[in-house]
Amino acid sequence: MATSDVIISRIESAAEERGLRVKAMLVGSAARNTWLSGAHDLDIFLGVSVDDDLGAALELAREVAPQHVEKYAEHPYVHARIDGFEVDLVPCYLVDDASHLKSAVDRTPFHTRYVESRIAGKEDDVLLLKQFMKGVKVYGSELKVGGFSGYLAELLVLFYGSFAGVLQNASTWRPGLCLDPEKHGTVDHDEPMTVVDPVDPGRNVAAALTRDNMLLFASSARSFIAMPKVDFFFPPPVIPLSDEELEAQMAARGTMPILIDFAAPDVVEDVLFPQLRKAESSIKALLERNGFSVLRSDVSAYRDRAVMLFEMEVWMLSKACRRMGPPVWQADHIPRFLAAHPEPLSGPYIIDGRVAVEEARQHTNARDLLASEITKLSVGKHLSVSICRGHNIYVGQDLLGIRDEGFRIFLAEYYRERYQVG
Amino acid sequence: MATSDVIISRIESAAEERGLRVKAMLVGSAARNTWLSGAHDLDIFLGVSVDDDLGAALELAREVAPQHVEKYAEHPYVHARIDGFEVDLVPCYLVDDASHLKSAVDRTPFHTRYVESRIAGKEDDVLLLKQFMKGVKVYGSELKVGGFSGYLAELLVLFYGSFAGVLQNASTWRPGLCLDPEKHGTVDHDEPMTVVDPVDPGRNVAAALTRDNMLLFASSARSFIAMPKVDFFFPPPVIPLSDEELEAQMAARGTMPILIDFAAPDVVEDVLFPQLRKAESSIKALLERNGFSVLRSDVSAYRDRAVMLFEMEVWMLSKACRRMGPPVWQADHIPRFLAAHPEPLSGPYIIDGRVAVEEARQHTNARDLLASEITKLSVGKHLSVSICRGHNIYVGQDLLGIRDEGFRIFLAEYYRERYQVG
Repeated sequence: MATSDVIISRIESAAEERGLRVKAMLVGSAARNTWLSGAHDLDIFLGVSVDDDLGAALELAREVAPQHVEKYAEHPYVHARIDGFEVDLVPCYLVDDASHLKSAVDRTPFHTRYVESRIAGKEDDVLLLKQFMKGVKVYGSELKVGGFSGYLAELLVLFYGSFAGVLQNASTWRPGLCLDPEKHGTVDHDEPMTVVDPVDPGRNVAAALTRDNMLLFASSARSFIAMPKVDFFFPPPVIPLSDEELEAQMAARGTMPILIDFAAPDVVEDVLFPQLRKAESSIKALLERNGFSVLRSDVSAYRDRAVMLFEMEVWMLSKACRRMGPPVWQADHIPRFLAAHPEPLSGPYIIDGRVAVEEARQHTNARDLLASEITKLSVGKHLSVSICRGHNIYVGQDLLGIRDEGFRIFLAEYYRERYQVG
Repeated sequence: MATSDVIISRIESAAEERGLRVKAMLVGSAARNTWLSGAHDLDIFLGVSVDDDLGAALELAREVAPQHVEKYAEHPYVHARIDGFEVDLVPCYLVDDASHLKSAVDRTPFHTRYVESRIAGKEDDVLLLKQFMKGVKVYGSELKVGGFSGYLAELLVLFYGSFAGVLQNASTWRPGLCLDPEKHGTVDHDEPMTVVDPVDPGRNVAAALTRDNMLLFASSARSFIAMPKVDFFFPPPVIPLSDEELEAQMAARGTMPILIDFAAPDVVEDVLFPQLRKAESSIKALLERNGFSVLRSDVSAYRDRAVMLFEMEVWMLSKACRRMGPPVWQADHIPRFLAAHPEPLSGPYIIDGRVAVEEARQHTNARDLLASEITKLSVGKHLSVSICRGHNIYVGQDLLGIRDEGFRIFLAEYYRERYQVG
């Protein structure tokens, strides 16, 4: 008897003992034989009537899996390790239509039923597609990845008929694509790609997919068709960057890496990563507004740390800079401008119809600017607290001091950035 | 008998001897007692009937002033030094209406007559205004200056009634101003300031005035009214910049001056300066297109040299730079892009919907870029020839090697750039 069946009957007996009406269901990829090896997850949902309370179902889950940890998405659920499987026991409502949800997880059983009844004979196509997406790093709808969910991969196989059909079609995708398998879409979505949920006409299954990941998948599909290689599915593992490699990269690129490192706030990745990305773009804007230039940047989290890396094209500036004042005919504003710039290096003079002065810049290097401004930037709440509590700024050779493997893997991926082009 | 009268009667007798009909006229500021001390110029025009030929009048001018040099504007004319005056003898046609010219100089006698008959009692206002304009460096309609002509200064005094009236009104000028003393303008001009010529309804007397010079005059007027000082009329002379001052400026500003120096082509300033300015803006665009940053730039000509100075905020860049390729869905263009960038430092990767690579920059410093590209830039014809024949690029401390006083005055004016703000 399969582990999932054992758990499900345990739940059902326990419910019966307590006189509860609970329907236990295996959902997700395990339910339709489309899970990837290495990911031994069982998602078992505990459905209750929409008039009942999820609390009783949660109680039941705790009892069935005594060695559990409690987690929380929109509602609390139970996670446990049973017979070598990572098992999630998730209370949900048994709604009668996927568009009448009481909670976000209530949709999942509908997805399972929709795919289950159509996928027979195409399980291998789904597995190939998921592994391909994983290999080219676009698998997962969590915000850290911004890629394709397992359900989306299944729908694509159903829509295009096979793994090969998906790749063939994807190779010509462009932003604005809309697929509607049940031809019942009711809403215009403005995401780069729309796949109307067959069980919920108002929902875009591809909402989390970023434009660049959509296009990375498209170009990978094209490259794979031109020259199929097993590397697309199983790329060589990333080796942490050594000291020598880091020094060689810095020498060859002649750029200046600046790293901001701080304690990762204690929040899930779906909260952390959007805040990290927002902070990354605020900092990039701060640097460029002040005349510095960022070649590329990236963020990561490893162990209990969060980092933001800015690779600088221009990290030092002249002392003198120009400050533009009001148009010459706004006579009232000029004295105020001049008073605010009392010791110009040159000027005031008139240029482009305005009064201007040249004065000494407050920060002539990017590190000083960051050190002075970073705690004043508007970034996400959790990040802001963490950064204000303490942060390190590493510049150039300083990076050699961070020996953590997670960090060195991040650096290796950063410098080798390369998409599959055959 | 005044020198001009002597010359005029000499011309008239010579004409009579030859049986020519030539009308000699004193025009310009000497004709209406509005010339500035130090500028002892006499402009005498030799008018011939529109059916006659200018050649006979030129012949006459040569005869009257045996020690002359011949010059050329639209037509040839004669320049000579007579009794301590710089005298121009200019052949022109006696047209019956200033809007029916045969040659550009034919309008001048009309200007003289228009002003002569109205200026009595306001000569001192004109002199004050001209000297004020000279002091704040906006006097002269030649293209090197881009300022106010003497005739324009006279018209302003007539229009606003006095020197004080001009300053009072000018202090609130803004671009788009249009004055039409005779209320007969027929054309919309798009220059920053329009003063319709009282003797030619289609002409803008202020056509040569740049926006920034118009506004510099306006703000100087405002400052003078707030706090009148003799410095506005007679600013302290510019002292050539010494080696120590140049080094102090470079240290305080932390910028990098780059100077391009070459033999000035043998053309008049009205041809040279527009070409210099055009080259200046082409070079600035080249530098900024390649990631460098120019704080300010200027051009000059002294002795037989022409120079362009670029004061750099950013003059060194990282080796690595990003090259953006086609959108990912333009599959046909991608192989060509990748072939053109065969040895990327990072990538290809996808960003903003496009394929991109990072590769080594050809020129990581501004000097090398200029040295490599300057002869390929599209600049004015005369300049292009001169630059291709030979040029020097001086960077930073190299500038100390140029000891020419004209150059050091240019540098002093460049660094001290400052308009009159009381």
